[in-house]
Formats: sequence, C-alpha cells, structure tokens
Amino acid sequence: MRMRKLPWAEDFLKEQDVVIKEPAALQGKWKETLKRDVLHLEIGCGKGDYWTKMALQYPEYGWIGVEKNNNVAALAVRKYTKQEKEKAHMRFINDDAEQLASWFAEGEIQVIHLNFSDPWPKKRAHKKRLSNQKFIAQYAKILADDGEIQMKTDNSSLFEYSIIEFQNAGWFLHDFSVDFRRVAHDEDVITEYEHRFMEKGQPIYRAIWKKYPMNEKNA
Amino acid sequence: MRMRKLPWAEDFLKEQDVVIKEPAALQGKWKETLKRDVLHLEIGCGKGDYWTKMALQYPEYGWIGVEKNNNVAALAVRKYTKQEKEKAHMRFINDDAEQLASWFAEGEIQVIHLNFSDPWPKKRAHKKRLSNQKFIAQYAKILADDGEIQMKTDNSSLFEYSIIEFQNAGWFLHDFSVDFRRVAHDEDVITEYEHRFMEKGQPIYRAIWKKYPMNEKNA
Repeated sequence: MRMRKLPWAEDFLKEQDVVIKEPAALQGKWKETLKRDVLHLEIGCGKGDYWTKMALQYPEYGWIGVEKNNNVAALAVRKYTKQEKEKAHMRFINDDAEQLASWFAEGEIQVIHLNFSDPWPKKRAHKKRLSNQKFIAQYAKILADDGEIQMKTDNSSLFEYSIIEFQNAGWFLHDFSVDFRRVAHDEDVITEYEHRFMEKGQPIYRAIWKKYPMNEKNA
Repeated sequence: MRMRKLPWAEDFLKEQDVVIKEPAALQGKWKETLKRDVLHLEIGCGKGDYWTKMALQYPEYGWIGVEKNNNVAALAVRKYTKQEKEKAHMRFINDDAEQLASWFAEGEIQVIHLNFSDPWPKKRAHKKRLSNQKFIAQYAKILADDGEIQMKTDNSSLFEYSIIEFQNAGWFLHDFSVDFRRVAHDEDVITEYEHRFMEKGQPIYRAIWKKYPMNEKNA
C-alpha cells in the first residue's frame, strides 16, 4: 500500500517503547520479554488493524508486528497507543523482513501471518514477494517444528505463486481455501482492508503451511 | 449432472463400435488399437463436448472418454457419430471408473482429464469424488511416469479437497490457477457447460498434477 509521507512518523516511531529498535538484541529472548510461551508474528502488518485486533482477541499469545514502511508503521503504532486494554504482550518492528532470521532464534516463532501482502506483480520483482524462496528459507529457521504460516490474500496471482513456491520448498499445505469467507471464521478477525474486498465480492484466498506433514512432527 | 432417462440410450450404446464393451480386453493394446503413441483419457466426460472438441483439435493423440451414466453417455456418443472429420483415434467407455486399473496397463495413459466432476458435497460421499485416494491410486498405476492429471472445476469445495488429496498422495502440483479463464488458454477448449459458469462470473479452478517433481523424472 503506497501512501503519502507523514511528517511526524519517524519521530513518533522513535519515541514509542513498543517499537523495538534493535530486534537482533532480543534474539532468543522474545518469549521471556513478552512473558508468553507462544509467539505470533505478522509480517507486513500495514496499518496494524490485524495485529491490534488479534492481540486483543488472543492475549494469551505474544504478538509481534513487522512493517518496513515508516508512514504505515506509524499509523499501526498509533493504533496500538490508543488501545486501552492490556498490551504488554505486543511489540513492533519497523524494519525490512529480509533481516528476519537475525531477529529471532531457531524455532522461536509459532505462527507467521502474511495478510494481503504486496503482490509485486512484475516478474522481475518476484524476489520481493513475501512467499519467495528467500523469505521461505528464513521462515523455516525461525518457525517452531510444529509451527505454521497463515496467508490470506485477495490477489489470485500472488496466491498461485505462493502455493507453488511453498510446495517447491518442501512445505506441506495444511489447509487451503479459494473462498475463505464463504463460511464464518470467528477465530480470525476481519480487518477494514479485507472488508473492502469482501464488499466488492472478491474472494479471499487463504492457505496454511507447515514444515512437515501432519503425521510426522506435528500430529 | 442428473437428467431424465432416454429410452433409446441403452440400445444405441450397444450398437456403436466406438463404445468399447470390454475395455479390459484392450489392456496394454490401446495405443496399437488407436494408432496413436500418446493417449488422453477423460473421466466423467458427460455429454462429450470436451472429448469430441479436443479430439478434433488434437488428432495426433488418442482420445478415450469415460462416462458411466447411460443417458449422458448416449448423448456423448451421438455427438461423436455426427462428427464428420476423422475419428478413428477416439473411443468411449460406458462404465464405472472404479474399474480403471483393469482397463489400462501400467503407464499406458499420458494425460487424464477431470472436467467439472460431480462434487459429491456430502462428507460421507467423499469416496465417490474422482479425486479421492481410491481413484488417485488407480491414476498412479495407469499414468506414464511423465504423465499428468488435469482438473478443472467450478466447485471450490471439490477443488480444495482435491488439492489436499493429491498432496497427501505425494503428487506434485505442477500448475495451479484459481481463475483459469482470466487469460486466454487456446490450448484447452471451452465447453458449453463451462461457458455457462463463465457467464455467471464464476471463476474456473484448475490444477495439473504430476507424479514426480519437475527435476526428477519429468524435467
């Protein structure tokens, strides 16, 4: 999502404690820091609607949002500051996910969420897609053996690309829907952004991948 | 597709030479019989629109249609009899595909087509779906090592079920689309039946599976 520059964004992000300035310094210490045994990580969390809503709905987990764009990140963090419920289990990283494996220890993350990621439609930009092999290799490192990746998107090309990329990386498609919202899924909040697609009648594609098939390491 | 009984269907099917009464007698001899090195098999070919059109477009291959329902099969075969071009490379089987592996030798078929198969939506009927493990095991036997299965459907539940079933059987998703007709595919004819879904704006789901990944046996 491209948006205009917010002059206050950079300073605001620097001031907020929820924004982790040196995520690599917390490598292997995230559970302890957030006081939660199970950590969820949303990569490309945009304006933070999903990150904040899910953290409110599931306070028993730790919730870490990642967004590299300063302007959008500032809106996400502002949303966080306005939330009045308990939020000690939330953190934010305003950096490029390419560094992911240096921020987290092996197996430290239980669930990675990729919501409506930038499709980077031009073929030469495929390395920027969050389901490119380069990213998948990092997810494999930081994800627990029984962990999973959850992707939702409105973009058919990105979805098709992702299904093939994860397969080629040897991952296991655990759940798969070409029209996720045709039935209610109360376990998963619907953001304002997603609502807009649903109103247009656009199907929401969704997949869950695990590193191993059900009957091996995560039965 | 359920349809009314055609009183002439049974007798008509018996009279037509294109209908193979004992397919098991041709096991291992189909290529020789059809005088073609590459055989395509459509399972559940309904009224035969795809079977006849593809045979016309690709006369270099052998085309075998399978349909168990007498009434629909009769319409397919009637369509064949009215076709005036060369058709010595076509055959029809009016029987239940459960017997598949007794009709063909190992590796005898190059491509299996599953078009708009009955979704059998009730969970207890899942064994009747043409992408059930029971059928997949038979496909594995009769399909050449570098052969493939092509599925098209308008039914999201059947598509989702199929993607997971083939994966669980260890097959490799070679191509995959959640909206196959968003670009032109002249290599693949569009039947009257499919046109009706497209007119309603219903996306066509499509997958191609192979027994082995690209870089193993079928590079």
